[in-house]
Amino acid sequence: MIHRVLATDLSAHVGETVQVSGWLHRRRELKRVTFLIIRDRTGLTQAVLPGAGEQEREQEQEQQQGEQPHGQRLHDIPEETVISFVGVVTANDQAPGGVELVAPAGGPQVEVLSSPAATPPLDIYRPTVTASLPTILDGSPVTLRHPHLSAPFQITAASVAGFRGALDALGFTEIHTPKIVGSATESGANVFALDWFGHPAYLAQSPQFFKQAMVGVFERVYETGPVFRAEPSDTARHLAQYTSLDAELGFIQDHRDVMAVVREALAGMVAAVAERAPAAVELLGVKLPTVPEKIPEIHFSEAMAMLGQDEPDLAPSDERTLSEWALREFGSEFLFVTGYPMTKRPFYTHAEPGRPQYSNSFDLLFRGLELITGGQRLHKYEDYVAALAARGESTEPYEGYLSAFRHGMPPHGGFALGLERWTMRLTEADNLRRTALFPRDLHRLTP
Amino acid sequence: MIHRVLATDLSAHVGETVQVSGWLHRRRELKRVTFLIIRDRTGLTQAVLPGAGEQEREQEQEQQQGEQPHGQRLHDIPEETVISFVGVVTANDQAPGGVELVAPAGGPQVEVLSSPAATPPLDIYRPTVTASLPTILDGSPVTLRHPHLSAPFQITAASVAGFRGALDALGFTEIHTPKIVGSATESGANVFALDWFGHPAYLAQSPQFFKQAMVGVFERVYETGPVFRAEPSDTARHLAQYTSLDAELGFIQDHRDVMAVVREALAGMVAAVAERAPAAVELLGVKLPTVPEKIPEIHFSEAMAMLGQDEPDLAPSDERTLSEWALREFGSEFLFVTGYPMTKRPFYTHAEPGRPQYSNSFDLLFRGLELITGGQRLHKYEDYVAALAARGESTEPYEGYLSAFRHGMPPHGGFALGLERWTMRLTEADNLRRTALFPRDLHRLTP
Repeated sequence: MIHRVLATDLSAHVGETVQVSGWLHRRRELKRVTFLIIRDRTGLTQAVLPGAGEQEREQEQEQQQGEQPHGQRLHDIPEETVISFVGVVTANDQAPGGVELVAPAGGPQVEVLSSPAATPPLDIYRPTVTASLPTILDGSPVTLRHPHLSAPFQITAASVAGFRGALDALGFTEIHTPKIVGSATESGANVFALDWFGHPAYLAQSPQFFKQAMVGVFERVYETGPVFRAEPSDTARHLAQYTSLDAELGFIQDHRDVMAVVREALAGMVAAVAERAPAAVELLGVKLPTVPEKIPEIHFSEAMAMLGQDEPDLAPSDERTLSEWALREFGSEFLFVTGYPMTKRPFYTHAEPGRPQYSNSFDLLFRGLELITGGQRLHKYEDYVAALAARGESTEPYEGYLSAFRHGMPPHGGFALGLERWTMRLTEADNLRRTALFPRDLHRLTP
Repeated sequence: MIHRVLATDLSAHVGETVQVSGWLHRRRELKRVTFLIIRDRTGLTQAVLPGAGEQEREQEQEQQQGEQPHGQRLHDIPEETVISFVGVVTANDQAPGGVELVAPAGGPQVEVLSSPAATPPLDIYRPTVTASLPTILDGSPVTLRHPHLSAPFQITAASVAGFRGALDALGFTEIHTPKIVGSATESGANVFALDWFGHPAYLAQSPQFFKQAMVGVFERVYETGPVFRAEPSDTARHLAQYTSLDAELGFIQDHRDVMAVVREALAGMVAAVAERAPAAVELLGVKLPTVPEKIPEIHFSEAMAMLGQDEPDLAPSDERTLSEWALREFGSEFLFVTGYPMTKRPFYTHAEPGRPQYSNSFDLLFRGLELITGGQRLHKYEDYVAALAARGESTEPYEGYLSAFRHGMPPHGGFALGLERWTMRLTEADNLRRTALFPRDLHRLTP
């Protein structure tokens, strides 16, 4: 029995007859020889056959001798046909990976597993992608087969694994919380409304309330799941569904304990990308950042002074300026901006002791883009009641949430990281839609 | 600086002065001594103090001497108060874990981090839970603090980690797919309708179409995420949102290659529960199953013959009967039932070669309950067109899905495992709502 060998493993099988299965990535026909480039999940394999003329002559001879031809004539097979090829692994410095498959004595053995019924909207085999973003997205079930377009998702998968591994090592428990909620509380705007057995309900914008409540149970929790924002604006860095990497932990002194966990999570993510997705890193030329032992930080008030402004929030251009400063000053591609004004943070944010106009919160900038938001939360029931009253909000829609704080909650805080943004920045993609599988936005609900 | 030590780590610190932080689980006052049982995420710690009378006397003396009292009087502190206790770790065979904390010379140092504003709906400190399920669910932000009620979620977290680890080792790529879809295709019924920027949309009942399409990109993919079913029936084993562990792989011979992956995933899950959640296993008395090297299987037609029936599907009682048979006959708590009639399987199911009324599909029964559904799928575009035509369905709502098959897809298959059901069966819970955080059903949308 001849077993399937993956492209990256072929060099360990020189001299053996093996089967390679995958998609016919590219066929190159020369006069006396035909190259089939076969793509599997690990990479490309070059298979070498007699040229088309040779094949026809052989097949004619076989038919004259009453033998069955070797299946479909190879020069009729279009790209993206799914095939299995049995050949002898042969060293060749010119071939990708230093080996190629040579048709065994007796002629090539190619089995067609599935034939395409149409031509892809872009040529999967070309080294670079020139197709427009809409073309890529409309045809994503096939366009993502292009190695440059699928590589970001290998980086994403590795990143999530690194995130989970780092938090597991720190004693966090993974949770899975409801995506459907009874009231549109957290921001009040940009929620998707739902028909829940005849009653109104909403898609959760974050697992915020659930993860805080679970600090009361597990102290340290994380969730890696979808969140939903009915973003009415159509920008390159917003999606209606994205994957949020959320963490929350109890028994902190303040937001700096949360920032220390952010640092570990980022270090775990970068290490996992290097370890688990080296091919994607190389293919895309990703420059992996170094995560400093201590990520530099700047207080919002100092940032405003440096920028010569007096605003309640940072504009995207300010974020870029601050990131450049951190790179220049500290050699760091990461920067914490702490102490955002309370007026710009959610009601559950803990104020800065002694300067109550500022908060014990932070954003993490990565290469000029806001990647993470986090901070210390209120933990006392009476503080929640006061915070809601100060904003003129009733406690009634928050009853389920507030019940956790009625029963003794430790000082705690947490953060959320937008996974697609992380990969976008890492791969220097120009649009978040290149790092989301089947993105959903104002205009896009299919495929 | 005195650092926090977790309950399970205390025995390594005998003789040291340490801080233990957590919830006041239980206070027991004897005449001359008070025991505080402190609960943290790893377990319970016993702290020993002078009795209440002694404390008052000490505090009065201090006040007379002009000193500040040691915070709140300890016998006023109710259960579920969040406290930090500084004491000397002292060996005591009678104490949980063989050690206890003794108040240092100079009196107890207890800091109250947060006081409860209400009494929990059930006593967290009692060894067993007698509260009704609605009481538990209504108060879950606090009732889940009961170790018996939180333990199932430790098992769930460990199980998912084991699932991912097993599939990572087999070359699978993790994906994150849309939970909002443009057409209610897969079953047509039991979908939640959504307002998508003024257009109708639906919550995804499974990542089926997406994971199949991604076989064309990554060959082997998995997703661990929420799925949504607008179940109009209120049973102990259905939820409106649950966590689906989904996998799909290409280049298979038939459904048996999928079943082999199921076996590896289950083995990984059981091993991870044993390794990562031993305390929960012990607390709940969970008997972890042995996953046989090869899980026994029975064809649907043979199962019907054995049951003396001629039905198109198995009733829950049949599943129990078959599970008992597998345990008796093979000593296995797992059983694959293969070859379900095509009429009872989705249109994308691959028929059994030679017996087209049966399918290359399977269910996995675990201790009498259907836990996993899977099988081989169609992979040729023309087969999809024919299958939809045979069911009288138009291809139009499936265009995005079918486009993957238009471009060459390998033979493939996959499976889905209901995570909450797995933990339910493992912990022998009487209701799926005990293994879902904040369950959602026909009647429950909060907390």
